[in-house]
Amino acid sequence: MKIIQGGVTAPSGFLAGAGRGGIRKSGRDVAIVISRRLCNAAAVFTSNSLKAAPVVVTSRKLADAKGRINGVVVNSGNANALTGNEGVRNAERMCIYAAGKLGLQPERIVVCSTGIIGRKMPMKKVYRGIESASSSMSSSLAAGTAAAEAILTTDSHRKEIAVEQILEDGRRIRIGGMTKGSGMIAPCLKGLHATTLTFITTDAPVTRRYLQSCLERLADSTFNMISVDGDQSTNDTILLLSNGSCGGPPISKDRRFEEALEFVMAQLAKLVVMDGEGATHLIEVEVTGAADVEDARKAAKSVISSNLLKCAVFGGDPNVGRIASALGNSGVQIDFSKLDVWLGSSRRCKIISKGLVSGNLRKASELMREKVVRITVSLGDGEARAIGMGCDLSYDYVRVNSAYST
Amino acid sequence: MKIIQGGVTAPSGFLAGAGRGGIRKSGRDVAIVISRRLCNAAAVFTSNSLKAAPVVVTSRKLADAKGRINGVVVNSGNANALTGNEGVRNAERMCIYAAGKLGLQPERIVVCSTGIIGRKMPMKKVYRGIESASSSMSSSLAAGTAAAEAILTTDSHRKEIAVEQILEDGRRIRIGGMTKGSGMIAPCLKGLHATTLTFITTDAPVTRRYLQSCLERLADSTFNMISVDGDQSTNDTILLLSNGSCGGPPISKDRRFEEALEFVMAQLAKLVVMDGEGATHLIEVEVTGAADVEDARKAAKSVISSNLLKCAVFGGDPNVGRIASALGNSGVQIDFSKLDVWLGSSRRCKIISKGLVSGNLRKASELMREKVVRITVSLGDGEARAIGMGCDLSYDYVRVNSAYST
Repeated sequence: MKIIQGGVTAPSGFLAGAGRGGIRKSGRDVAIVISRRLCNAAAVFTSNSLKAAPVVVTSRKLADAKGRINGVVVNSGNANALTGNEGVRNAERMCIYAAGKLGLQPERIVVCSTGIIGRKMPMKKVYRGIESASSSMSSSLAAGTAAAEAILTTDSHRKEIAVEQILEDGRRIRIGGMTKGSGMIAPCLKGLHATTLTFITTDAPVTRRYLQSCLERLADSTFNMISVDGDQSTNDTILLLSNGSCGGPPISKDRRFEEALEFVMAQLAKLVVMDGEGATHLIEVEVTGAADVEDARKAAKSVISSNLLKCAVFGGDPNVGRIASALGNSGVQIDFSKLDVWLGSSRRCKIISKGLVSGNLRKASELMREKVVRITVSLGDGEARAIGMGCDLSYDYVRVNSAYST
Repeated sequence: MKIIQGGVTAPSGFLAGAGRGGIRKSGRDVAIVISRRLCNAAAVFTSNSLKAAPVVVTSRKLADAKGRINGVVVNSGNANALTGNEGVRNAERMCIYAAGKLGLQPERIVVCSTGIIGRKMPMKKVYRGIESASSSMSSSLAAGTAAAEAILTTDSHRKEIAVEQILEDGRRIRIGGMTKGSGMIAPCLKGLHATTLTFITTDAPVTRRYLQSCLERLADSTFNMISVDGDQSTNDTILLLSNGSCGGPPISKDRRFEEALEFVMAQLAKLVVMDGEGATHLIEVEVTGAADVEDARKAAKSVISSNLLKCAVFGGDPNVGRIASALGNSGVQIDFSKLDVWLGSSRRCKIISKGLVSGNLRKASELMREKVVRITVSLGDGEARAIGMGCDLSYDYVRVNSAYST
């Protein structure tokens, strides 16, 4: 597998466009990603029970079309959430208008939105943005990049990646993706969901069933293991499109496809956390020695979600007791007399040994100041492991979120 | 019922003392509260599975002594958590030393600690503090106040209250209380627990069973309904002591006793939230129209725990969609088309009507800037209601917690 240039347009047969309708204060705010060749689509959505209108519309359309669609229209600047029946109609109108402009069938286009909750969609501006985006459709890498920019909100930069992989039968395929998200990012402990807007394309032909099962499984180990602020969004969606442009029979199981997809999803998830609102440090927590994977994930999420620990990392304060306290709040049965915790990666420093704080706190403080603060936890209770990723809580998180709508 | 001067020494027969051992950088750091007359004691503890040594020791001693104790020794500056068997022995030593100094039996004294997690107790300093506190024991109101100061950590001021009440049979009784806590304060969704160190005394004679049942029930509607930062502490304890000094038969049910106890606990809980680390606003959320009380509590807690909403309140940003999004994350089944939300108390302003954002956002912004931001939610699904209290998330919360241990 190798990393290649570009994002959603790196796989063959995908086009992207970006335009400005004026929904956001500045910049492009509508993106379109399609394949002229019909795709198999898989998707996972937020488990917040307040689902935004585009989530309602897209999940219904995917079911009606049996997952056979051409693509998606996305806007930033307005979430179209808490907008009632009119919001649902507006989401449907976006699909119809985009399909018309693109010469596609309205039932083959789905929709995503991100931005402020509780405001009516400014449909004149939305139509203008769709018109502008649809007139710029191109399969160039630059078109993918422009789309990756048009879906951003408080993000500080675009997030895209693409890889090329050789399948088990020797076919060369590509997977590309883009994502947005920097606040309202939280793991959800039950059910399937995503935690951001993420669009992944592949020219590999993949059966719908396999596509959906890969997406759900890999979402649990990637996007569902990140947290910026504990607030799960109303709009979270991951959409995965397979157009089969690379030819050959559809795959229904391929280790190398999964490996490449996992890499793309893990990288995109990491980009979201690293761009967490106000984040100055990435916090990576690996829990080992858990009784099962579910316990390992719960424990890792509890640590990355602790406001107190996040503040300590921001300040480089080696308040390592907070790691143990967060583990104690995870709901996992833990024998603290077996707990070991290390800080750092290459030059690891043991800070909790058999449930007691040990080691050099000055060195711990240095390791807490690294750009990536790596925490390794051993529960001494089994073989299962999981990795969670979060970021620190800084003055800037408060600044960004104390005046978001004004 | 009337509010009277003082705190834990307001009820007759209770003595308090405060001293300095040097566990904290400055100020008194050991408090003792006892009654020479043996008390019935009730207690609730943290449900964090990492329980501090004093929590382990106190819960065991209360069981061994069948709830018959004289009082408690408390230190601030060190939590005695994540300290292994040595920590447990040190907590026991504190009880023995205090009992010796006070001329009481060691099995009749329990212990609480608050401060940094993961550091060995500096026993020389602790003994010095106990010696100093035990030599200052007095039933004066000033002694109660000094104790209320000695238990503080990042709190900005002491928190005490006392009331006088006439029981149903005409007896005049008193209830006094003190509490500490400003960070690591979070509701816990299951089990019984407290969220801070709180000590309540009463001269009413109350059966142990009734005392415990009142405490557990009222903790659920007061302390378990507050949140500062979502991180539940390893040391949380509420201890309620009844010495029966006011005479007469023990009460095993009395509406007026419960009313007074609830008032004291609600006021103390409110003092904790209002002193939340860095807090500039109190957020009070009343959920009405829930199917049952549990749903109402879950919904209220989800709103007060949202980092995004807390930041919006800090900035006076009328980002009212965040209220609905937090409700959607509560795990309560909500029909958003029936959702109504108001801001403000006397001059209420409806901001969400039947699931749609409505009303005057400029007025909403004004109401978001009030010292107490009151949010009323109607789920339109039943008759149950609950109130949750939280505070905003400010630059100062980050400042306080990014250098707590250094």
